[in-house]
Amino acid sequence: MSAVASPSVSPAARLARQIAFIAECDKLKEIFRQTLNSQSKRAENDAEHSWHLCLCVIVLAEHANFPHLDVLHVLKMLIVHDLVEIDAGDTFAYDTAAMAHQHEREALAAERIFGLLPEDQAREFRGLWDEFEEKQTPEAKFATACDRFQPMLLNCLGQGGGWAKHGITHDRVVARNSQIALGSEALWQHAQKLIQELVDSGHLPSK
Amino acid sequence: MSAVASPSVSPAARLARQIAFIAECDKLKEIFRQTLNSQSKRAENDAEHSWHLCLCVIVLAEHANFPHLDVLHVLKMLIVHDLVEIDAGDTFAYDTAAMAHQHEREALAAERIFGLLPEDQAREFRGLWDEFEEKQTPEAKFATACDRFQPMLLNCLGQGGGWAKHGITHDRVVARNSQIALGSEALWQHAQKLIQELVDSGHLPSK
Repeated sequence: MSAVASPSVSPAARLARQIAFIAECDKLKEIFRQTLNSQSKRAENDAEHSWHLCLCVIVLAEHANFPHLDVLHVLKMLIVHDLVEIDAGDTFAYDTAAMAHQHEREALAAERIFGLLPEDQAREFRGLWDEFEEKQTPEAKFATACDRFQPMLLNCLGQGGGWAKHGITHDRVVARNSQIALGSEALWQHAQKLIQELVDSGHLPSK
Repeated sequence: MSAVASPSVSPAARLARQIAFIAECDKLKEIFRQTLNSQSKRAENDAEHSWHLCLCVIVLAEHANFPHLDVLHVLKMLIVHDLVEIDAGDTFAYDTAAMAHQHEREALAAERIFGLLPEDQAREFRGLWDEFEEKQTPEAKFATACDRFQPMLLNCLGQGGGWAKHGITHDRVVARNSQIALGSEALWQHAQKLIQELVDSGHLPSK
C-alpha cells in the first residue's frame, strides 16, 4: 500500500499525524455506555463494545442478508463508528430527548476527530461514519444489525439489567432491535427468542 | 456468504453455537494488562487493547513493509489474538519466568475457547491464532508490529508509567519493540524517536 500524501507533507509528518490521531482515540476507553458487561456487571465502554462488534462480524457474517458482503468494509465502519462519542458522549438508545440533537452533536465531533488525520484519510473515515449513520448500504445494514444485537445479547445475559434500571419495556426493545432484520433475518429470528425468554422469566415487562 | 454446516447441524443450532462463543468472549473485558490507558491511568483490558490495535491497522496499513498486505486478515488475527487469555490470563511481556510456559497454557485455552465454535470456524480461528503466534507471514508480522507499538505508545503517553513500576529499562524496551521493524520499518523509526524522548525526559532509565 502506498501513502497518498500531499507533496507538502513529508512521510514522517504524515505518520506523526496518524499517531496523534491514534493517541487521541485512546479516549474512547473512557466513554461508558448503559450496557453492563456480563461478568463484572460494570458499564461497558465504547472501545470494548467496538471490539465485541468486530468479533460479531467475523463470526456471524455468513448470516447477513447479502451474499457479497464486504467484511473488511463492515469492520472499518465499526472500528470508527463510536469515535464521535469522544466529544459527543454516549446517547442512551432509549432516551428520545437526548437523541433529538444527537446527530448534530456527533457531526461536529466527526469534523474535529477525523480532522486530526491526513486529509485523504479524514475523508475516508468521515465517509465510513456517514455511511454507518445513513444505514443504506448492505455493509451499513449488517454493521447496524451487529450494533443492535450485541448490547441486546449483553442485556439478555444480565437478566435485562441494563434495561430494567431505565424501565424499558418489551415493545420498545422489539421496536428498536427489529432493525437487526434489515441486516440479518436469521439473527433477528434468534434475537426474538432471546427477548422472549427474558419476558417469560419475568425480567422484561411487556408494557 | 454461505454457512459451511455439517449436515447434522441445523442452521439455528449453528447460530446458537456462534452466539454462545460471542457471549463467552465477553470475558475478555475482564482481563487486565500492565499497560495504563492514557486518560484515566487505569489498567487497560484486552478487549480495549484489541480494538485499539484494529484502529492502528486501518490507519497505519500503508506503512507496512509489504505492498500487498491483506488488511482483513490482519484484522481477523488481531480481533481473536488475545482470546486465549480468558483462560490463560495476561502474561506481562517483560516477565521472562511467566513467559516460559505461556504458549503451553495458551494452546490449551485455544482448544477450549475456539472449540466452542462450529468445527469449520474453530479451525479457521485456531489457524488465525497459530499464524499470529508463529509471526512468519506478512500479515502476522504487521499484526505483531501493531501489538508492540500500541502499548509502547501508551507507555510513552503516560511518561513510562507502565514500565516504571516494573523497573523496565531502555535496553529491554528496545529489544522487545525492535520487532516492530519486521512489520513496518517506518513505524519503528517513529517508535525509536518516542522512546528516545522518554529517555531524554528522564522517564526511562538507560540501565
